Amino acid sequence: MEETPQQKAQRQEREIRQGRKEKMQKPFHFADRLNAAIQKKKSAVCVGLDPRLEQIPTFIKKRAQAEHKNALTAAAEAILEFNKGIIDAVADLVPVVKPQIAFYEQYGHEGMRAFEETLWYARDKRVLTIADIKRSDIGSTAEAYAKAFLGKVDLFGKQAFSFDADAVTIAPYLGWDGIKPFIVEAKKHGKGLFVLVKTSNVSSGDVQDLVMKDDKAVYEIMAHYVDSWGSDEMGDSGYSLVGAVVGATYPVQAKKLRSLMPQNIFLVPGYGAQGGTAQDVKPCFNEDGTGAVVNSSRGIIFAWENSDQFTEKDYADAARDAVIKMQKELDAVM
Amino acid sequence: MEETPQQKAQRQEREIRQGRKEKMQKPFHFADRLNAAIQKKKSAVCVGLDPRLEQIPTFIKKRAQAEHKNALTAAAEAILEFNKGIIDAVADLVPVVKPQIAFYEQYGHEGMRAFEETLWYARDKRVLTIADIKRSDIGSTAEAYAKAFLGKVDLFGKQAFSFDADAVTIAPYLGWDGIKPFIVEAKKHGKGLFVLVKTSNVSSGDVQDLVMKDDKAVYEIMAHYVDSWGSDEMGDSGYSLVGAVVGATYPVQAKKLRSLMPQNIFLVPGYGAQGGTAQDVKPCFNEDGTGAVVNSSRGIIFAWENSDQFTEKDYADAARDAVIKMQKELDAVM
Repeated sequence: MEETPQQKAQRQEREIRQGRKEKMQKPFHFADRLNAAIQKKKSAVCVGLDPRLEQIPTFIKKRAQAEHKNALTAAAEAILEFNKGIIDAVADLVPVVKPQIAFYEQYGHEGMRAFEETLWYARDKRVLTIADIKRSDIGSTAEAYAKAFLGKVDLFGKQAFSFDADAVTIAPYLGWDGIKPFIVEAKKHGKGLFVLVKTSNVSSGDVQDLVMKDDKAVYEIMAHYVDSWGSDEMGDSGYSLVGAVVGATYPVQAKKLRSLMPQNIFLVPGYGAQGGTAQDVKPCFNEDGTGAVVNSSRGIIFAWENSDQFTEKDYADAARDAVIKMQKELDAVM
Repeated sequence: MEETPQQKAQRQEREIRQGRKEKMQKPFHFADRLNAAIQKKKSAVCVGLDPRLEQIPTFIKKRAQAEHKNALTAAAEAILEFNKGIIDAVADLVPVVKPQIAFYEQYGHEGMRAFEETLWYARDKRVLTIADIKRSDIGSTAEAYAKAFLGKVDLFGKQAFSFDADAVTIAPYLGWDGIKPFIVEAKKHGKGLFVLVKTSNVSSGDVQDLVMKDDKAVYEIMAHYVDSWGSDEMGDSGYSLVGAVVGATYPVQAKKLRSLMPQNIFLVPGYGAQGGTAQDVKPCFNEDGTGAVVNSSRGIIFAWENSDQFTEKDYADAARDAVIKMQKELDAVM
């Protein structure tokens, strides 16, 4: 008898959390793994899995509601089914996906289950995962987050994987205390992290553009930190396991940041829906065309909404089409 | 027949999420509610619920493991039982508790259930809750967090509470975009937020102490922001629903910050285990003795570990005793 989807999820959870042996995959270092995936897929596109429930196709929501009486369970199931469709459609095209945890966590523990299963489903399909968590804390709290998302947590004296993402995003207001535990776990398990340096939003300057006595802005100081924090953790591909988040919407700053952090991979949000173009993200890459992944969320996963060619039933095809278009846009300027 | 604990939790979840009418409690404004609770309990102590599994008494863990085969479920149940014991023991003494979400979230969706139920249990016992989430994001993502923790989320077109905490902590590296959605929800639902200004950790200066051209440090600029962001959202008690996190370990900076943010309530971490003393936190209060809550986590919830008087069976009594001692220390300097 075939496993039901629920049985499969439960089995995977057991395997991943309580039994799975850590595969010493080659390459092991996160930057090498990401660069190998970029080379293999010939793409630096990252698909942002921000599954806003209101925008998920009606046929998926109706089915989830018919199957689950509890509205939170139904919401989580709808999100998961939607994501699986997207992942299936883009897995051969893109090296990495980035689920934004807020859109899952908002539905409490049911939403968190959808988040976990999304990460594991992507791994099954050989796509790397960046858990976009932007956590920021200190000491033992930062350690708890680091172990949860990248490493292993303590379960009554045994160590087990929990979320087991390939990388996370981290907010740096708390300084080195908040970063170090993530580097420790990343190093141990072949994982990575991306530290917010210059974000894509309108008011990112409130803090990040404040200018110091020596004429440097906060985001430049942060770039120096990231460069230094990552310098001991280099992979064979020439990049560190510590990366930086640099928004597509600030190309002038991006150019400066690229020269300040030559060995750190940039995760570049803000493409498409937020206004960033292929020209804008070009300075985020090094001259040899390596060193960045460019994320688009809404522009890909909800592409069918702005399309004459696709209906909601074809949302996954529309996403695939949008990835191919984005890739062409990037190729044209590189 | 009496409800089983699980049935009760499920019923509460239903009531809270899908049916509960929002009580227009008086006072409604978060600062007024917090100040009323401080007055009523004659205490500004906040108990940090950071339930490290390794430190939870063995008898609780053994029971949870005997009852639940799945180690993650057992971990979540142990955490929840431990927390309930603490909350029962301190509910008549303290105005507010602060669960640190990392210690729950690390156990995935099972951990998140323990986090939710901890918040709801505290409310049942008439203790306010600060969800220590230190989230930081922008635009629609920040909105999703804000709705999840303070307001109502969209569930197939219906609006329902999700975590429903009384307040949250927020990291400010992303600027105003990341704060505004929380103020919107806080205002609507009588909730509050505490923005990180000067944190208690050793390396908080990496970013927060950077000095600008005009000789102001980043944490001072942040204080100006917090003062201004909160100025339209004042309660009758003279405080804003926007508060600030100011660490007990930096009394000199705290004094300056108190004068820069006279109308913002300080949430003060770092007392006890992290090294902050009653003298150190004194500058966090205004001259009339209002304007701050002082958090202690390990020093209270794991007080039995450093005690000759209590064993692990008495962990809750030990916590109550530690709260009373801390209150005396604070009273002595105020």
